Amino acid sequence: MIEIEKLLKGDRRSLAKSITMIESSLESDRKDSQALLEKILPFSGKSIRIGITGVPGVGKSTFIENFGLYLIQKGHSVAVLAIDPSSPISGGSILGDKTRMENLSQNDKAFIRPTPSQGFLGGVAQKTRESVLLCEAAGFDYIIIETVGVGQSEYEVADMVDFFLVLLLPNSGDELQGIKKGILELADSIIVNKADGLSLSQATQTRAQYTSAMELMRHDPEWKPRVLECSAIEKRNLDVIYEMILEYKVSTTNSGYFKTKRLEQNENWFKRLVSEMINNKLKSNKTLEKKKFELESEVRKDIKLPIVAAQEYLDLLFK
Amino acid sequence: MIEIEKLLKGDRRSLAKSITMIESSLESDRKDSQALLEKILPFSGKSIRIGITGVPGVGKSTFIENFGLYLIQKGHSVAVLAIDPSSPISGGSILGDKTRMENLSQNDKAFIRPTPSQGFLGGVAQKTRESVLLCEAAGFDYIIIETVGVGQSEYEVADMVDFFLVLLLPNSGDELQGIKKGILELADSIIVNKADGLSLSQATQTRAQYTSAMELMRHDPEWKPRVLECSAIEKRNLDVIYEMILEYKVSTTNSGYFKTKRLEQNENWFKRLVSEMINNKLKSNKTLEKKKFELESEVRKDIKLPIVAAQEYLDLLFK
Repeated sequence: MIEIEKLLKGDRRSLAKSITMIESSLESDRKDSQALLEKILPFSGKSIRIGITGVPGVGKSTFIENFGLYLIQKGHSVAVLAIDPSSPISGGSILGDKTRMENLSQNDKAFIRPTPSQGFLGGVAQKTRESVLLCEAAGFDYIIIETVGVGQSEYEVADMVDFFLVLLLPNSGDELQGIKKGILELADSIIVNKADGLSLSQATQTRAQYTSAMELMRHDPEWKPRVLECSAIEKRNLDVIYEMILEYKVSTTNSGYFKTKRLEQNENWFKRLVSEMINNKLKSNKTLEKKKFELESEVRKDIKLPIVAAQEYLDLLFK
Repeated sequence: MIEIEKLLKGDRRSLAKSITMIESSLESDRKDSQALLEKILPFSGKSIRIGITGVPGVGKSTFIENFGLYLIQKGHSVAVLAIDPSSPISGGSILGDKTRMENLSQNDKAFIRPTPSQGFLGGVAQKTRESVLLCEAAGFDYIIIETVGVGQSEYEVADMVDFFLVLLLPNSGDELQGIKKGILELADSIIVNKADGLSLSQATQTRAQYTSAMELMRHDPEWKPRVLECSAIEKRNLDVIYEMILEYKVSTTNSGYFKTKRLEQNENWFKRLVSEMINNKLKSNKTLEKKKFELESEVRKDIKLPIVAAQEYLDLLFK
């Protein structure tokens, strides 16, 4: 059993154990997890949740390490949850490298935890949402959620954080950077990293390009996304980023938007869970799954109308 | 009953009657509609389907009228399906104005039909997809689907056409233009309309801005979206747009993408229909709906975890 008092006091062994429990797929653990989450719910919610994404090579680890250390220097504590797109086939992982964020991981104001992404109810990030609550209950006041952007993870992360950062390389063109559709529109800030050495002028140019592009995109009336440049490795502009996030927190808290956005995220989360749980239930029915597969194939071959196929499926489901 | 032979010969009274039938929500009409659609399916598919969106005031009617007349002059026939966001409350409509596209509507190579958007199974555009098949069976070789972009309609239209055009005003900034998130990324071409008179230089400037912005966006490897300007009222550049669409048709037909995209659209349509039909079925269960409403409210007030609420709903659904 998890000792809740210890968890609430910030004991990281209890925190690690609780996260392991909620990540478990055992039915007995599921019940205990829900009970635990219900108990800690009143103690959660007091952090700033920051999402960070960017292609491999953009410098996410260095950024999180040095930004994390900067936050600690400012008197905060930092939990980093890394959504780890480990492959169920290879068993390997992209983020799991032990040498990542060495200085941050040794700091006693920091907690770093990779979350395996596959195979869980609720998609990539289901367990991550719950881990956020546990880290908050343990007293961490900055939660950083990192994703390398495999599958749907960036979209899901953007919908579970207060502030969403997209890191870019000093290069022009999303296409070159492998940025997925719609990601820029989710960003609260775009940060061109590696603005140092020989890349400095290119970083400035990239920033200018994205600044104009962002002008053409719609954003929430509450916050106009900012395009900045930084050098995580040289620790340049980390203070600007910190102050931007604080400014966001203050202005959206005053307007009430900070709270509203979180409650909307909760509601979306509930709806998504319901629809995924129903899908899982339907998928466990082999007759239905077989029929669906046949119908999809007929639709794909253009020999059956989608509306007719859908009706056949529903007739079988609700017969 | 609909006389299929007449419909296949392009009789527009039969076409109008068939569309009315598929739009009907009567159970008896539903069966007849499905039978009709299955019969005409082998005769459908031979048009180029073009989606057109843009904010009110951008000049969609003038564009469609003059582009439609241009197509007719080139030897084609044109069906225009306008997704009409008439309000269920006022009963009024934005597109329903009889004086719209007067010249085109009087041409015997054209067929214009507003589709009411509300209240149908399958969202805004369900019936529009089926109307496209009917127009194709009646021999129309260009189908234009117009939407003013209320709710989800642009997204749905983009997923039912071969080529998606977004019309813009000669103004800088999406925000000013009320363009919704993600729409630009769906566009196969962005056209700055009203490039005439005093607006000409502003149109050119707007085109340049969007050209750079589009460079930063991901697109399908099969087609790089083009940013053009035109004056629908002065009929300027309609030929360039026509040739672009032909080029698209030829190059994507040769690569096989034209067909693949349509089959993918069919498969998406099937999946969306299944999930909407299941939702409708669940919504008709009053006990379930009441429970869902209560749970949503608890989640919204932050007194219940989404995962706990979702489990309670599922327990009731599959009890």
